[in-house]
Amino acid sequence: MRATILHAPGDIRVETWADPVIERPTDAIVRVVAGCVCGSDLWPYRGANAVPEPRTIGHEAIGVVEAVGGDVGRVRVGDFVIVPFDHCCGRCVHCLAGQTQGCVELAMTASGQAELTRVTNADATCFVLDEAPDAARHAAVLALSDVLPTGYHAAVSAGVEPGMTAVVVGDGAVGLCGVLSARRLGAERIIALSRNPERQRIATVFGATDLVPERGDDAVEAVRELTGGVGADAVLECVGTEESMVTAFRVARPGATVGFVGVPHGAAIPWPVAFRGNIGLRGGMAPVTRYLPELVPAVLAGDLDASAVFDLELPLEQAPEAYAAMDERRAVKVLLRP
Amino acid sequence: MRATILHAPGDIRVETWADPVIERPTDAIVRVVAGCVCGSDLWPYRGANAVPEPRTIGHEAIGVVEAVGGDVGRVRVGDFVIVPFDHCCGRCVHCLAGQTQGCVELAMTASGQAELTRVTNADATCFVLDEAPDAARHAAVLALSDVLPTGYHAAVSAGVEPGMTAVVVGDGAVGLCGVLSARRLGAERIIALSRNPERQRIATVFGATDLVPERGDDAVEAVRELTGGVGADAVLECVGTEESMVTAFRVARPGATVGFVGVPHGAAIPWPVAFRGNIGLRGGMAPVTRYLPELVPAVLAGDLDASAVFDLELPLEQAPEAYAAMDERRAVKVLLRP
Repeated sequence: MRATILHAPGDIRVETWADPVIERPTDAIVRVVAGCVCGSDLWPYRGANAVPEPRTIGHEAIGVVEAVGGDVGRVRVGDFVIVPFDHCCGRCVHCLAGQTQGCVELAMTASGQAELTRVTNADATCFVLDEAPDAARHAAVLALSDVLPTGYHAAVSAGVEPGMTAVVVGDGAVGLCGVLSARRLGAERIIALSRNPERQRIATVFGATDLVPERGDDAVEAVRELTGGVGADAVLECVGTEESMVTAFRVARPGATVGFVGVPHGAAIPWPVAFRGNIGLRGGMAPVTRYLPELVPAVLAGDLDASAVFDLELPLEQAPEAYAAMDERRAVKVLLRP
Repeated sequence: MRATILHAPGDIRVETWADPVIERPTDAIVRVVAGCVCGSDLWPYRGANAVPEPRTIGHEAIGVVEAVGGDVGRVRVGDFVIVPFDHCCGRCVHCLAGQTQGCVELAMTASGQAELTRVTNADATCFVLDEAPDAARHAAVLALSDVLPTGYHAAVSAGVEPGMTAVVVGDGAVGLCGVLSARRLGAERIIALSRNPERQRIATVFGATDLVPERGDDAVEAVRELTGGVGADAVLECVGTEESMVTAFRVARPGATVGFVGVPHGAAIPWPVAFRGNIGLRGGMAPVTRYLPELVPAVLAGDLDASAVFDLELPLEQAPEAYAAMDERRAVKVLLRP
């Protein structure tokens, strides 16, 4: 197959690579209809994670089932499926408690930016659609494989409830989906921290009522003013760095929760703020499988549409340009078509 | 008055010191009937916090109101009161939301180990008892000024519910009160991490069903075995160091919450564990005032008794010995009588 291969930080190429195969009888192979680049893919691209050897990359995909293992029953060849980035067995104590990201057999989509990808525990993992969506809806559906449920997880973890004031730290695709999710959960006021005009525009379309372009101390001060000195009822931390986490805690009102979903990279808790303010922290890897039964119908009905985060679409062969565009913040999120 | 004075790390003395006075019309002065030494008092005693100049110390006290300011109405001279360590105004947006530890006028008891102590916002802060308790009940009542509500806060923050398995990290007085509180909230199984025979004994009296003397990796493994590989439903972190916090996260099952109340000293989150496991963190300084209406009646009725954490009682003049005994772990918690 043709696949995006990360050779080393900054060195990403589209090459011919071995097709993934059924390794266990519960596996399925999916022919990717659309994949995309995630903000977390930029970490190894930028050298924040080691790349010991060339490997496929990409964990977001929708597509058509090409093959299934002998123990796969519910999912059939030809089905159009959403592939949650975090595969789960659906049977273990953690899956049964809704903690599918803590599955004892947790695995990840490993070649979402390729023609084919392997899905483990396919019956529990694949979300089968009744019919293949029109190409015009691919972006909205693709968002369900990670970025939308992840933004939703930030909002749920932060405890967003109707009437609340929510702050969203991070204006990447996940942060923007956090804005959309906070609105869906009924937040009355949504303050998005963003200084990029295009991202501000999407945030506003998604439901942001206030935009704060400042960072650090100035952002904290701006939120304090916007909230009459009280702080936010709920905070969505969608970056994962120390600065973003500290800002998230500092804009929270006493007793509020920071819902975090950015993969932590140097994140640190401002302990005195957390201690005195009783600011909670909750979140992490999104249990995508838990959320899909709720989110998919809303997306298919057109009530929830995160497709605006895909502001660039490229053929798979141009994956290197997709990475460069996101790395240089010329694009929010790039959809790739094999 | 006679008061315990911290001069420098390791240098603590009982001396004659200026009486506290009414500084604001909402203040009260309380004649201390019983005070005590808190584990957090050991931090500056051990040199973990700077001691720029000699100062009074001690933030736990019960006593009789000696004087009140002109704006104090509910609390009267002669009342027997519990003095929560964290004073609050009762009127600000945070107090009204139950976040009394986030009060805009937050202040702390500053001379609990002395003959007299000043209470700010006395009407909102002091919990007035209908009658003075017998001396035999002083320890149980004194525990309400901090250590018991703090342990309770750990259990509430960790989300302990009936039937759950809770782990308590830390066998100091707060940790032991965490055990007692987890039982009160209905935990079916309470695993106490303790290697000290006397503390193990108190933990068992307070409701611990299992004792784990190991630390670090071995403690994590022991809890994993005791929970059939699942992990704990709720974890109470009652120390505040990096090791204890990491252990707390590692023994939690996916989706569980670490309720933390130990004043953080070098605490750090094991991010990969928190991220994948969706282990939450909640807690901090206990909103004592929020809990007293629930806890005081239970203590006065004899249904809730944390007095066993006071395993040594000394006259105020022997405060230095109290510190030494706790520092050397010869005593769990020392009650001081002026």
